[in-house]
Amino acid sequence: MARYALRLEYDGTGFVGWQRQDNGLSIQDVLETAAARLAAPVETIVAGRTDAGVHAEAQVVLLDLPRVMTPYALREALNFHMKPHLVVVRDAAPAPEGWNARFSAIGRAYRYRILNRAARPALLAGRAWHVHVPLDEAAMQAAADSLLGRHDFSSFRAVACQAKSPLRTLDRLQVTRDGEVIEIAAEARSFLHHQVRNMVGTLKLVGEGRWPIARVAAVLAARDRTKAGPTAPAHGLTLVAVRYANTPFTES
Amino acid sequence: MARYALRLEYDGTGFVGWQRQDNGLSIQDVLETAAARLAAPVETIVAGRTDAGVHAEAQVVLLDLPRVMTPYALREALNFHMKPHLVVVRDAAPAPEGWNARFSAIGRAYRYRILNRAARPALLAGRAWHVHVPLDEAAMQAAADSLLGRHDFSSFRAVACQAKSPLRTLDRLQVTRDGEVIEIAAEARSFLHHQVRNMVGTLKLVGEGRWPIARVAAVLAARDRTKAGPTAPAHGLTLVAVRYANTPFTES
Repeated sequence: MARYALRLEYDGTGFVGWQRQDNGLSIQDVLETAAARLAAPVETIVAGRTDAGVHAEAQVVLLDLPRVMTPYALREALNFHMKPHLVVVRDAAPAPEGWNARFSAIGRAYRYRILNRAARPALLAGRAWHVHVPLDEAAMQAAADSLLGRHDFSSFRAVACQAKSPLRTLDRLQVTRDGEVIEIAAEARSFLHHQVRNMVGTLKLVGEGRWPIARVAAVLAARDRTKAGPTAPAHGLTLVAVRYANTPFTES
Repeated sequence: MARYALRLEYDGTGFVGWQRQDNGLSIQDVLETAAARLAAPVETIVAGRTDAGVHAEAQVVLLDLPRVMTPYALREALNFHMKPHLVVVRDAAPAPEGWNARFSAIGRAYRYRILNRAARPALLAGRAWHVHVPLDEAAMQAAADSLLGRHDFSSFRAVACQAKSPLRTLDRLQVTRDGEVIEIAAEARSFLHHQVRNMVGTLKLVGEGRWPIARVAAVLAARDRTKAGPTAPAHGLTLVAVRYANTPFTES
């Protein structure tokens, strides 16, 4: 038995999400099926279970494989067997003793992308939420600031969320505009289910001018999911980094 | 008859290129078919005839339409009728008197993207040339510098090129790296057919260390297409801007 750390990139379009489900193909299916071509049985633990349609630049996975291979050979073999799916292993490394992709993670970073223009997306199709009403990114940032820090995020938590506690510490929620594209960078040790998308769906109401900035702090204080805005679509969201104190990878 | 200036974004994947051809669907087909739903006959003149697989963030087109519409209504109607193709009108404006999308252009800007890593692309699939050999971007930049200015670019010109003269003035050829992604920004008043892709295919040989930097200047001086490197793949190339002294658009 050998234990590996993998860093994955994937286009979530068309997948049912990270986790194996009976209603369609998951990223986990693609990875585990490829790994089982090398040796079986395999087992994986993922850093962040992304939802259907959510993308990843750097998802991290622990892979237990009953076969010893060099990280180079493992990466090449998995990338070969995962073809033609848009799922690739960017890096493979031996997992450090005691390391766990999920429980050793000390930070997760997501990027949410909004295409804010009249015309529907072409080059960002499936990669950004198309909002045609002009958004005020400064107002969105002001509202975002009121969510920073340690809070009970029940207002931004999916009904199906399985976390024991609604308390989370939001370390970063930054709204930037580059021409027609608004990006929202979110960082925390961990997030509740749908938390980023629910925060984005709420900030969009502020950006449109439908909500005053101060309403977001009031919604947070209410600890009631029905008070916040709708869940922003999955395809605008990308998991961009998972951080570890003892990263298994050469460069992070 | 009304004359409009359009700024288009498109994903060139699967198209035979800008120009109408009998071997498949072109961007021109998609635009003109949509315009003909509004009024016929229509005529277009394009700023840069992109090849099959080449993308555009800001292609510019003159459209003659035998019907007067507001630019807003024209854009919305064309974007509706071009669905579900990944071709959209970002901006529409009345064409200034005497303005021509092709002949009034005083500059064209392209971006060529290389994904320089071992793993095949997932999120940049169809949008970047995958080169797995590590490239030295500083060597590529040094070689690129030797192509700047006014030269006979016959060594970088497609055999099928229909331009009368091989003389062109290259204003910018900048190689930058951001992690695994190398971008090559090229700007000139106009380019020869395949010029950007032939320059990129040659710079890649320098980046790999297979060619010394000085060989690129020697190839330019040879004015012989057989001396330069191969044509880089179309899908790494994007037309990012067309410049005019009298731009028809509000923001450029």
